[in-house]
Amino acid sequence: MARLDEYYQEMVDIRRYLHQYPELSFQEEKTSQYIADTYEKLGIPYQTKVGGNGVVATLKGGKPGKKVALRADFDALPIQDEKDVPYKSKVDGVMHACGHDGHTATLLVLAKALHEFKEELPGTVVFVHQHAEELAPGGAKSIVESGILDDVDAVFGTHLWSNTPLGTVETSLKEFMAGADRFEINIKGKGGHGAQPHQTKDAIVIGSQLVTTLQNIVSRRIDPLGTAVLTIGTFQSGSTFNIIADTAKITGTVRTFDPEIQDLIIEEMEKVIKGVCIGYDADYEFHYEKGYPPVINHPEEAALVLKAAEQVPGVEHSQEVVPGMVGEDFSYYILDKPGAFFFTGAKKEDHYYPHHHPMFDIDERALPIAAKALAQTYKAYQEK
Amino acid sequence: MARLDEYYQEMVDIRRYLHQYPELSFQEEKTSQYIADTYEKLGIPYQTKVGGNGVVATLKGGKPGKKVALRADFDALPIQDEKDVPYKSKVDGVMHACGHDGHTATLLVLAKALHEFKEELPGTVVFVHQHAEELAPGGAKSIVESGILDDVDAVFGTHLWSNTPLGTVETSLKEFMAGADRFEINIKGKGGHGAQPHQTKDAIVIGSQLVTTLQNIVSRRIDPLGTAVLTIGTFQSGSTFNIIADTAKITGTVRTFDPEIQDLIIEEMEKVIKGVCIGYDADYEFHYEKGYPPVINHPEEAALVLKAAEQVPGVEHSQEVVPGMVGEDFSYYILDKPGAFFFTGAKKEDHYYPHHHPMFDIDERALPIAAKALAQTYKAYQEK
Amino acid sequence: MARLDEYYQEMVDIRRYLHQYPELSFQEEKTSQYIADTYEKLGIPYQTKVGGNGVVATLKGGKPGKKVALRADFDALPIQDEKDVPYKSKVDGVMHACGHDGHTATLLVLAKALHEFKEELPGTVVFVHQHAEELAPGGAKSIVESGILDDVDAVFGTHLWSNTPLGTVETSLKEFMAGADRFEINIKGKGGHGAQPHQTKDAIVIGSQLVTTLQNIVSRRIDPLGTAVLTIGTFQSGSTFNIIADTAKITGTVRTFDPEIQDLIIEEMEKVIKGVCIGYDADYEFHYEKGYPPVINHPEEAALVLKAAEQVPGVEHSQEVVPGMVGEDFSYYILDKPGAFFFTGAKKEDHYYPHHHPMFDIDERALPIAAKALAQTYKAYQEK
Amino acid sequence: MARLDEYYQEMVDIRRYLHQYPELSFQEEKTSQYIADTYEKLGIPYQTKVGGNGVVATLKGGKPGKKVALRADFDALPIQDEKDVPYKSKVDGVMHACGHDGHTATLLVLAKALHEFKEELPGTVVFVHQHAEELAPGGAKSIVESGILDDVDAVFGTHLWSNTPLGTVETSLKEFMAGADRFEINIKGKGGHGAQPHQTKDAIVIGSQLVTTLQNIVSRRIDPLGTAVLTIGTFQSGSTFNIIADTAKITGTVRTFDPEIQDLIIEEMEKVIKGVCIGYDADYEFHYEKGYPPVINHPEEAALVLKAAEQVPGVEHSQEVVPGMVGEDFSYYILDKPGAFFFTGAKKEDHYYPHHHPMFDIDERALPIAAKALAQTYKAYQEK
Repeated sequence: MARLDEYYQEMVDIRRYLHQYPELSFQEEKTSQYIADTYEKLGIPYQTKVGGNGVVATLKGGKPGKKVALRADFDALPIQDEKDVPYKSKVDGVMHACGHDGHTATLLVLAKALHEFKEELPGTVVFVHQHAEELAPGGAKSIVESGILDDVDAVFGTHLWSNTPLGTVETSLKEFMAGADRFEINIKGKGGHGAQPHQTKDAIVIGSQLVTTLQNIVSRRIDPLGTAVLTIGTFQSGSTFNIIADTAKITGTVRTFDPEIQDLIIEEMEKVIKGVCIGYDADYEFHYEKGYPPVINHPEEAALVLKAAEQVPGVEHSQEVVPGMVGEDFSYYILDKPGAFFFTGAKKEDHYYPHHHPMFDIDERALPIAAKALAQTYKAYQEK
Repeated sequence: MARLDEYYQEMVDIRRYLHQYPELSFQEEKTSQYIADTYEKLGIPYQTKVGGNGVVATLKGGKPGKKVALRADFDALPIQDEKDVPYKSKVDGVMHACGHDGHTATLLVLAKALHEFKEELPGTVVFVHQHAEELAPGGAKSIVESGILDDVDAVFGTHLWSNTPLGTVETSLKEFMAGADRFEINIKGKGGHGAQPHQTKDAIVIGSQLVTTLQNIVSRRIDPLGTAVLTIGTFQSGSTFNIIADTAKITGTVRTFDPEIQDLIIEEMEKVIKGVCIGYDADYEFHYEKGYPPVINHPEEAALVLKAAEQVPGVEHSQEVVPGMVGEDFSYYILDKPGAFFFTGAKKEDHYYPHHHPMFDIDERALPIAAKALAQTYKAYQEK
Repeated sequence: MARLDEYYQEMVDIRRYLHQYPELSFQEEKTSQYIADTYEKLGIPYQTKVGGNGVVATLKGGKPGKKVALRADFDALPIQDEKDVPYKSKVDGVMHACGHDGHTATLLVLAKALHEFKEELPGTVVFVHQHAEELAPGGAKSIVESGILDDVDAVFGTHLWSNTPLGTVETSLKEFMAGADRFEINIKGKGGHGAQPHQTKDAIVIGSQLVTTLQNIVSRRIDPLGTAVLTIGTFQSGSTFNIIADTAKITGTVRTFDPEIQDLIIEEMEKVIKGVCIGYDADYEFHYEKGYPPVINHPEEAALVLKAAEQVPGVEHSQEVVPGMVGEDFSYYILDKPGAFFFTGAKKEDHYYPHHHPMFDIDERALPIAAKALAQTYKAYQEK
Repeated sequence: MARLDEYYQEMVDIRRYLHQYPELSFQEEKTSQYIADTYEKLGIPYQTKVGGNGVVATLKGGKPGKKVALRADFDALPIQDEKDVPYKSKVDGVMHACGHDGHTATLLVLAKALHEFKEELPGTVVFVHQHAEELAPGGAKSIVESGILDDVDAVFGTHLWSNTPLGTVETSLKEFMAGADRFEINIKGKGGHGAQPHQTKDAIVIGSQLVTTLQNIVSRRIDPLGTAVLTIGTFQSGSTFNIIADTAKITGTVRTFDPEIQDLIIEEMEKVIKGVCIGYDADYEFHYEKGYPPVINHPEEAALVLKAAEQVPGVEHSQEVVPGMVGEDFSYYILDKPGAFFFTGAKKEDHYYPHHHPMFDIDERALPIAAKALAQTYKAYQEK
């Protein structure tokens, strides 16, 4: 623990270095190499190209115990960094706007610290550096499918969270983060002169009717006690003001915690789209991509995280929270294995911006807290 | 003409008598008998039970000429008379709220006057007293189908019109009154407890979506240069505030001048209803009754009416007007035969109410004007 | 317990008697008298006219203990009984379609049984016979406000539940039944002839737009993790198919567990209604009556109910369930005092109809189970 | 007339030259220069920079008569020419996709021909070469306002029309082409994470509701006997599928023949937009640009065109047609002066595409027909 405080500056340096050289999902070759190089220098055995650009290192402790994976993701986003700081992104249009640089720094330095106490370490730590969290199908699924974690007993991970104050650790004992799907609807009407609607099938009118009607799915067709969001994110149609548009492209996302509700929404959407298009004699294409499953923590492991965090210096609040509707592919790790995901508060008080914002930044003092919370959780799990 | 002025009081008396004893469409037995009795007294040959309660009298003039039918309708409406006049309806809930009592008085007294001048009369006048104008399928169709008018050369008729000032005669050279159809849509959803929408198919939500979507037919699917009205007149659904309704009943009317637009609307309605119901997995019944065809005047005969009316004492304005969207089964008489329909202004200046209003009344001074306009038109047609 | 089985036939007799003579909410004078007479005969002191037609009897046990109220409601519904049974309602259009007759029978016979064991009885039982549960503002509020329960330690109650199998007792440790509000919206447009929409403000089109737009409140304006239902139960507009309606009357219900969401919905509804009416230049009246608050059980007391029920002969399942969206004014009793409400399964296997259905009935074997569950809960609470 | 046939190849050459070097509205400097050069060579006096890039030449005939303007426009459109012909546009993204190249060729060669017969020519011909017809505020208004046409007696013009067969001349005696307005609506909601709709004001939902509600203007608020089109041409909102959009931009066009209906639509749109935005607590900007007034021909001059055209060799049909909903700034010339606009059929039978289509082309044999129709109309007007 104390060692992690000593390494604070190193965490910051790694985080800032990565912040300046962000790489997009599935293209994180240099970051992957950087991580591998670090383990090489530490002398911890590792594997590269795990399920893509993933890097997995394994530290066997000197004492018997369970095998526990800790996960950090390392991809960045297609956002232009607009902060005015020395460690601003040097890659045009790419930015670590979600804190994955911090996750990586945290885990690398934690590995270094644990390595130093290797002999006293019970069990085996598996450091999972995952690529491509931001873009479906994500990296978690392929890492799990690679089999490299098959003999692991549990998996834990944390997300530096800019909405949560420094010194707070949060998780939920059950549903923690929602499943996040993507859909695209292409309406195929018939274009024409703006003065002759009767010779067309007006894609904007059809699309608007569709957006309006889709609201009824959440308001009328989902059990009020269930949870579901159906958001239309884009509506693009028409080329100029006096031409009736022939097509409309509508994209959006669906968030749920329950596969039955998810399937019901897909079915109802298909029905609504079909109905609206029949009413206008129009055609359509409907693509629905199921995204990451919801992150549903295992109650015991999540409770263990909260209890462990209470003992971490600097953590003032370790608390259960209501689930959030955002998605994470950490879900794949704990579909079949015990484990839990949690938030480490990283709100930068004088500079608060939400995740995925061009001004996003974290309070770097959260890095050692995250490392300690993972370490303490690891310890608690061994003692369980 | 002068004779008609002399008989003014008689017209008023007949009209007021009929006003007090109105009969609903298809139930006008006493009125029919009254008319027959009048012709009996006049000694003009007549036939009763023509196409129902219709009475048709024939006055052969002493001079050669064409055979011309003049039509007056005589049914009343299911409206409670709320006027405070001595000749107020004595039948509860039934009222001559459209002026048909006046039409009948006009035609009966015109028959009496023409009979007096029978020897000098060129051609043959056919007095068509029609039942059931207010209720589809109407009386005109069955009178025409009876064959009694087969050898008639032309048909004319007038409507006392409360929107038009006294002293004004109006018609159109072409489309004059719209076709008026009736439809009924029954949505069959699935009811349930107001707290459990997901177990229902909410008929009110479906019906509302339907009403909203039906607006697009006029706004987007009908040639902007065409004319169409689609009105929902009633929306009845649900029994109490906390039960989700299983059915919704929606009725309305469609008005057009053009059979192609009429058919297009029916087709588009079917499509919209089907589409909306598919979107909600609901069933429906859609009944569409084509009403009277539009009254489309024959240009020459309509022009002749306007010219004839100019010569009628008391007519200050004889003018072409834009067509109205209301319907009339006079249309059947001139589908295959020449003829025209026109309005005789009967606005009661100090007591104006629209047709079908419980306070409706006419300025009775319009009665002789209507009679003279018909007489003059008859004369002009003979001279044509 | 055994005594309650012996009195089975008496419970059935009382229930069937009440079933034949149902009285509407706030008009339950004879039922109230019937209850008072029963206590009179039993020799248990009671008060009538408590907060209206309420009757409250108090049985002080021979041993020290806590004072615990048990509640049963006794009003009926404006529904025509359509069952074909000897005990069918003899009052036209009024029916015990919710099981309150059974609640009353249960509590009266329980009082009789407990009275017999008065000496051994610890604490004091308060038998609360409540009028007017079915109609806001309900009887519970006024009974609580009467002060008669001020010195009571806890309140319990049960509802015979036709959706739940015989032998099952259900409750929730927290939110159990939703708050149920009622609203009425009167849209004031401008009527007119069905052929002349441009001279009107079409109330059906406005109302339909409103129903459609109101869906967005649940789908877009309520936290997806919150719970809310907004149901339109009735939409009544228009007199006949070819007249454009001047007014539309829309009623419905809102269900929530959280006063903040309740207030947010009211605020958003006001905004939506105002906006839609401005768009059509129409006026409106919006009445919103907050109904009963949600029934939010006290966790300890609810857990105690479940545990007590486990020991009741005939109870095979005693289980926690997800909250229901229906409302109950039992909520008032436990706003400030400990207590819990629970369901006693009364599904009639070969004759299942939901509550408030004209064919509704219960399996009468549930009556002694309900009585025993209340008795056992009382006992457990004394021993707590 | 015969001379115009002789010059057929010259017309084609000019048209094809202009077709290869199209210039956008208000940027037509080279075309303007080309026209001026032609008049320079012909020795016909002309003025450049009339109301912008306009060129007006004046040919005074040897005989007395009236002064009559003939108009041709010469701007092109921002469309990529996709035809595969030798005279394809050489300017990337700019194309004569409406036939204005042909109008110019027609008028230039007509000027040449009339110049040759100058001595016998009665009256004075004013050749109006107008810039910027395709883009509001257009060139016609500024040319009229320049005063150069103040002493002209009448104005005529034609449009080569790809929907009308070769050999047909068409016009209307009254309304011929609609007024065409442009509007833009910017909805200002509040963006946010796709999973948290309750913290946003969803611009796509607001915009869709708006498009849906705007349909009611044509369906319910405009006199069914009037003519109006309200088309939404573009709906652009949102950046990605999982972010709720903060703004939506909606553009469209309104077409009318009647200024009262035009003003009513603007007023109703304002009301609908305001209402929808109030319902969502959102802001908006609404810009409405009245475009060209409708082209309302003067009945006598239009009749004269039809009669003159009958005498043109090659014209098989000279007919009255129903008005079209497209706009033209020719309207400005005949707001205060007599005149008429007409279509000269130029449909290319084996290669038909509507105006403004990337494959648009005309049958060049229409050029001499247009020239002769203008010449014959000029002659007829002098003889009137």
